[in-house]
Amino acid sequence: MRFATFSHGGRRLVGQVAVDGRTITALDLPTGSGDRGMLSLIERVAAGGKIPGTTGAALALDSVQLEAPIPVPRRNLWCVGRNYHAHAKELSASVFKNNTADTTSWPIIFSKVPESVIGPTAAVVMPPAEVSTQIDYEAELTIVIGKGGRNIPREKAMSHVFGYTIINDVTARDVQIRHQQWDLGKSFDTFCPMGPWIVTADELNGSDTRVRCWVNGDLRQDALTTDLIFDLPSLIETCSRGITLYPGDLIATGTPSGVGMGMTPPRWLQAGDSVRIAIDGLGEIENRFVDA
Amino acid sequence: MRFATFSHGGRRLVGQVAVDGRTITALDLPTGSGDRGMLSLIERVAAGGKIPGTTGAALALDSVQLEAPIPVPRRNLWCVGRNYHAHAKELSASVFKNNTADTTSWPIIFSKVPESVIGPTAAVVMPPAEVSTQIDYEAELTIVIGKGGRNIPREKAMSHVFGYTIINDVTARDVQIRHQQWDLGKSFDTFCPMGPWIVTADELNGSDTRVRCWVNGDLRQDALTTDLIFDLPSLIETCSRGITLYPGDLIATGTPSGVGMGMTPPRWLQAGDSVRIAIDGLGEIENRFVDA
Repeated sequence: MRFATFSHGGRRLVGQVAVDGRTITALDLPTGSGDRGMLSLIERVAAGGKIPGTTGAALALDSVQLEAPIPVPRRNLWCVGRNYHAHAKELSASVFKNNTADTTSWPIIFSKVPESVIGPTAAVVMPPAEVSTQIDYEAELTIVIGKGGRNIPREKAMSHVFGYTIINDVTARDVQIRHQQWDLGKSFDTFCPMGPWIVTADELNGSDTRVRCWVNGDLRQDALTTDLIFDLPSLIETCSRGITLYPGDLIATGTPSGVGMGMTPPRWLQAGDSVRIAIDGLGEIENRFVDA
Repeated sequence: MRFATFSHGGRRLVGQVAVDGRTITALDLPTGSGDRGMLSLIERVAAGGKIPGTTGAALALDSVQLEAPIPVPRRNLWCVGRNYHAHAKELSASVFKNNTADTTSWPIIFSKVPESVIGPTAAVVMPPAEVSTQIDYEAELTIVIGKGGRNIPREKAMSHVFGYTIINDVTARDVQIRHQQWDLGKSFDTFCPMGPWIVTADELNGSDTRVRCWVNGDLRQDALTTDLIFDLPSLIETCSRGITLYPGDLIATGTPSGVGMGMTPPRWLQAGDSVRIAIDGLGEIENRFVDA
């Protein structure tokens, strides 16, 4: 199933997208759940509850405004650095230059603030030049945690997946590098486009799907998640070691090669650029970058 | 003024601590604000509203249970690494070994999940040995943001401070180091003791106060915040560059020298240890470390 958060008639609702992808019908959730609607749905299902029925008429998908499926996550998103072999190589002289560890030892995990999240077609606002001049894209398959838990072993990890969505882990490279820890350079307002919806785990094999990213129509990233250095169960195991995961937690699984920083010379995003990300079986998001 | 979150008679409330420090009286906030009570107070004041009056009788402070002043922050806490000159030196061969930057260039900022927060006298639960064997303490003065904002210049930064509290930035050093990015090793459940309350900015000069930490009664850390590498206005300016700060956001300002990892050989915390942190003008917290 595909669950989306959408706005229609001045209200923010959670709905189920029809199999043919043409319509969406609101779920019968408590009124006023607003931004928390999708989280309450995931919490309900994680607790063993049923998915609520739909209410009202099916609406044409192109008549509603899709929002980020989880407009305000309950805490920072977990994100994974250096998780495709080819991407590790392309940034070995810049972002990963102090990385003396074997790439197969432990994943790099950082975070992105909840308030950086925007919808699947919303504009990313470029910071002024004195704040950053090196804005880059990162297409990422993102795990949506269902049932929570701590110290989840990899053999049981996939039973904790509610579903998947797409994020663009937009990054200010100069800020990322100069502070050594990456959270600041990853957390600018509007720097986390998300969507178009959540596909439930029963309908997508996240361990074997294709991730692509285009800038102004040019294909820049194209990889299969079979090429992940740390697979999905490993990431869930890692993020839950000593740390309780909660329903609705998000783990962005890393980006393939082909980012702007990996080019010679680097190619940074400019106002007016449009970045489209597609993941097979999931859908796509497309966000324009604009000046403030 | 000193505002605390406390439990009494099965309810969680926000109260004002009397000048003599012996009693606390509940503030007249909407019932049911519970964990969010302090955040709603800070938001109200940040929006120009008045501090609500008190309600009910003054209660003896030792008859109530003090909780973390903000029991569940709205998002991950911002934390600063390597922010006292002596501490930068003591960890130059371990945590900061890949740090090629000039220490006076840019601060290191990472984060800690909201759910790691516990109260000022609650127990810190040690992870099993297979998860971490290198548990360490870090005493830190912590800024509580009042009025929010983005791109806050340092000249205006102090007007965005609601007050201060204490945290112990408990750290699993092995986990911190092996993942390169620090958030995981800083975010274990119960790894953020906080309290005992928030002292408002008009009553404490956070830029010139004394931070001390004892392990089982032995003084381990003792420094003045005048020794900070990056001062409070710089930290607020840095954390708000491109990123909107919100009322109730927390910025832990870094720890002085004297952590367990800086000793030869390192001295890790063990079950049964007790860590006490005092900041002049603020108060103290003391937390026992226990096995799961």
